[in-house]
Amino acid sequence: MAGRQREISVSEFFLKNRHLLGFDTPAKALVTAVKEAVDNALDACEEAGLLPDITVQVRDRFGKSRVVVEDNGPGIVESQIARIFGKLLYGSKFHKLSQSRGQQGMGISAAGMYGQLTLGKPLHIISRVEGDELATELYVSIDTANNRPDIHKKRQVEWDRLHGTRVEMEMEGHHQTGPHSVEVYLTQTAIANPHVSIAYRDPQGREILFARSTDRLPPRPREIKPHPFGVELGRLIQMLKSTKSHSLLGFLVDEFSCVGKKTALEIIKRAGKPLSDRSYPTHIAHAQATALHHAIQKTHVQAPRTDCIVPIGEAQLLEGLRKELPADFYTVATRPAATYRGNPFQVEVGIAFGRPGEPEIEVDASGHMRKKKGQDPGAAEQLIARKDEPVQLLRFANRVPLLYQQSSCAITKAVIQTNWRTYGLHQPKGALPIAPMAILVHVASVWVPYTSESKEAIEPYPEILKEIKLGLQQCARQLAHFLRRELHLHQEYDRRTYIEKYLPHIGVALQDILTLTDEERDAAVQKLDNVLHASRMTQRRDP
Amino acid sequence: MAGRQREISVSEFFLKNRHLLGFDTPAKALVTAVKEAVDNALDACEEAGLLPDITVQVRDRFGKSRVVVEDNGPGIVESQIARIFGKLLYGSKFHKLSQSRGQQGMGISAAGMYGQLTLGKPLHIISRVEGDELATELYVSIDTANNRPDIHKKRQVEWDRLHGTRVEMEMEGHHQTGPHSVEVYLTQTAIANPHVSIAYRDPQGREILFARSTDRLPPRPREIKPHPFGVELGRLIQMLKSTKSHSLLGFLVDEFSCVGKKTALEIIKRAGKPLSDRSYPTHIAHAQATALHHAIQKTHVQAPRTDCIVPIGEAQLLEGLRKELPADFYTVATRPAATYRGNPFQVEVGIAFGRPGEPEIEVDASGHMRKKKGQDPGAAEQLIARKDEPVQLLRFANRVPLLYQQSSCAITKAVIQTNWRTYGLHQPKGALPIAPMAILVHVASVWVPYTSESKEAIEPYPEILKEIKLGLQQCARQLAHFLRRELHLHQEYDRRTYIEKYLPHIGVALQDILTLTDEERDAAVQKLDNVLHASRMTQRRDP
Repeated sequence: MAGRQREISVSEFFLKNRHLLGFDTPAKALVTAVKEAVDNALDACEEAGLLPDITVQVRDRFGKSRVVVEDNGPGIVESQIARIFGKLLYGSKFHKLSQSRGQQGMGISAAGMYGQLTLGKPLHIISRVEGDELATELYVSIDTANNRPDIHKKRQVEWDRLHGTRVEMEMEGHHQTGPHSVEVYLTQTAIANPHVSIAYRDPQGREILFARSTDRLPPRPREIKPHPFGVELGRLIQMLKSTKSHSLLGFLVDEFSCVGKKTALEIIKRAGKPLSDRSYPTHIAHAQATALHHAIQKTHVQAPRTDCIVPIGEAQLLEGLRKELPADFYTVATRPAATYRGNPFQVEVGIAFGRPGEPEIEVDASGHMRKKKGQDPGAAEQLIARKDEPVQLLRFANRVPLLYQQSSCAITKAVIQTNWRTYGLHQPKGALPIAPMAILVHVASVWVPYTSESKEAIEPYPEILKEIKLGLQQCARQLAHFLRRELHLHQEYDRRTYIEKYLPHIGVALQDILTLTDEERDAAVQKLDNVLHASRMTQRRDP
Repeated sequence: MAGRQREISVSEFFLKNRHLLGFDTPAKALVTAVKEAVDNALDACEEAGLLPDITVQVRDRFGKSRVVVEDNGPGIVESQIARIFGKLLYGSKFHKLSQSRGQQGMGISAAGMYGQLTLGKPLHIISRVEGDELATELYVSIDTANNRPDIHKKRQVEWDRLHGTRVEMEMEGHHQTGPHSVEVYLTQTAIANPHVSIAYRDPQGREILFARSTDRLPPRPREIKPHPFGVELGRLIQMLKSTKSHSLLGFLVDEFSCVGKKTALEIIKRAGKPLSDRSYPTHIAHAQATALHHAIQKTHVQAPRTDCIVPIGEAQLLEGLRKELPADFYTVATRPAATYRGNPFQVEVGIAFGRPGEPEIEVDASGHMRKKKGQDPGAAEQLIARKDEPVQLLRFANRVPLLYQQSSCAITKAVIQTNWRTYGLHQPKGALPIAPMAILVHVASVWVPYTSESKEAIEPYPEILKEIKLGLQQCARQLAHFLRRELHLHQEYDRRTYIEKYLPHIGVALQDILTLTDEERDAAVQKLDNVLHASRMTQRRDP
């Protein structure tokens, strides 16, 4: 039995469990592949300070799909290309605490592995770094038994781009429309990334352009050190062992964020003897490390710095919603940054209420009311729920739309746990509220805790749940205001139509009683009408 | 930027994403740790043909937990202990297609890693192989940067067991009662494993014995080769490359299950020239491999052998249900084996209906009916739902109870998608049926596709969903029978009580009309009563 024990390569593991990476069905595999390539492209451009211009092409024939994603990013140096695309758990984003779309170093290699598994086709890469005369072209697959890139062909080629990367993948895939489509994924990406331009050519050959609405690149997220709260004892011991600092004081100040000399001294004092500011970190015993860990938890440490998180921003979010989701009412809220397990994160919430196409009431300058039919909903139809349906959720993590596994996501749980009845909406027990509404929630973090490697849902850590709920409540209060006003408007409209219907009859009655001429009667009716409008408008301005 | 690209150790990855392994909260971590250790113990005993005798101890003080699991298994040879407990993705079960509880080589090392992270404590192992004079004692943790075991102390010790393994883990943990408790996990384990004996000492010091109800060890699952259906093109190409066979014919017969010489020749013929039975596998080009792949899909290949799957068995399952879940009605169904992606699997379903404590109607030999109060529910209370609650699901995969992530599991989806109204139950739209009932579903497979590394839910592959639904329908039909009979009994009882109430009045009336003595009147009433009973009993026997 002993002889059968052996090592399992991480590629083999995920090949056998490919549903963990989002490649369980051909339809999902196609969207996941596009998503992984686009996420990488956006990260690369932004890291290099370039405004992203992305093209996406999808072809789908008899269950075989081809996806091509091309970016204007900085390109990849030749020596790294094979490993980035042909090895799982390889990348630049895992070891740093910094907000980015990718974090695991798995996605794009997994897409390649899936193509290799289903059609036996390697990934086809072209990449050029600015200043290089030629681009590098590479066909690469994964040697899954060893989790190593297997290069099939590599050569230098002419390429019309000065810098950038092009990935071409072939796989078993199925293009579908609806809420889990490439188009919806790109639409949502455009909402959360107003600085991005994406040109999409779908399998029918249609060209769809998601144009950027701003030329301002979001500020680059700062890399940070862990916040002392939420660092577990075991991790603290490990950090003490591997630090380069020669004193405990230096260790605390250098290895953590938000710990200055004063805070560090306070922690050390609280931890008690024999620890001192000069204690040599690697010599600290288990019991003392435990005391230090306790002391950290009990000391007041400044909240984590917020500049390591780059939210979309209220103005940009509002702009994004307006552009892609025609609605009657919008509101957004950005929460201050918070932490879970020592990782800073920040929550943004947006609500778009009112489905275009439903009749609206219009009030003109003189106070006259009119019901008018709204414009046609069009593509946004998929994104705002119908009147009698649960609200639509648009979930984002680090600006990436999350399309699958809605029921296990912290965002869904937070929406369900919010009491929407207080804000005037209908909500069945333990379910999403019913309203013509879309709720957008964006969780940005230096480390997003996804519920699986396919990064489709956020683990409901209590701290994250709480922040989302607070953001939802903030928006819901604004919404309740709007709904009360709307309700008032509708009631007023009904009352007014009722009065207007009887005004002529009152005119006739007055004519009888006061023996007026027809002109005098009409003038009286007109006067009454104006008086009523005026009183209504005063009322409206009053509260 | 290029310089920052680097490899990510699989331990670091899961340390940062420990919720993927089931270690997100202290309460869940405790149950997961027990589960991983018990699963390993059971696998080890069964593989060695030993009837498992397991002891489990849990201590929980101020958020620090200690778990000790001891088995009478074959023990682990000294050279392997450190790697089995101190390295992720290391084990004997991943590379073979055979039904076992463990399959990833991660669980127990992950529990150790969590203990190390939260309390800085290594795993403490004692193991003795039969025939060895002494046992090996070892303290081991994981060097996460390299995913390598880090041995703290190792020595030979006296041990009163002749063979077996003892694992002791200390970790941040929280012991809780209720549906996600260690006790419920062990109760459910006992239901699905009637041959296992578990002695459990809970944090309050209570000793609970789950005694075995059979001394017969289930037959050992046979290891199999992949079934040709569901082997993807890429995998076929890889297999062709790495086979030791020198001819295509030999390759097909040797590397797949259910492919004999005749079937292999048929496949080769269908694939067309230039392929022949003598083609050298490693020389087969991409286009020919594609043709071969097509040919396999179109050839009639025998269904996978069922002897690689060892179901619990209808009799044992019924016995297990009766023992742990007192109820009014039981039914079980075992489906024939099927495959998903070439992996054989088999579904078993059991239903326990009727919650003890609810009044029942009893019919004696003479046909008299009586309502009687059922016995007290006791511990099983948690396992059968109340009358007005959604049914309880008992989910199992390879005899292991699944406690978490119910909503994402194929079993839950199959129950929701079954139309229970046809069988006489109340079921809200898109939800579990409402009934005093527990539904047990066991999915056994040579490779269970879990939705995450924590192995808490089964991925809803269409083939698996379908089989579960068929099993549910089979049980539901039996249930519907029972419910109709029950309904009839209740209606009859109501009718009878009504008549019995008026019989004495009829007697008095008869006495008046026919001027009977009191004795004659009572005799007439008695006769009427008997006639009514007799007619009822004939009716009952009729259909």
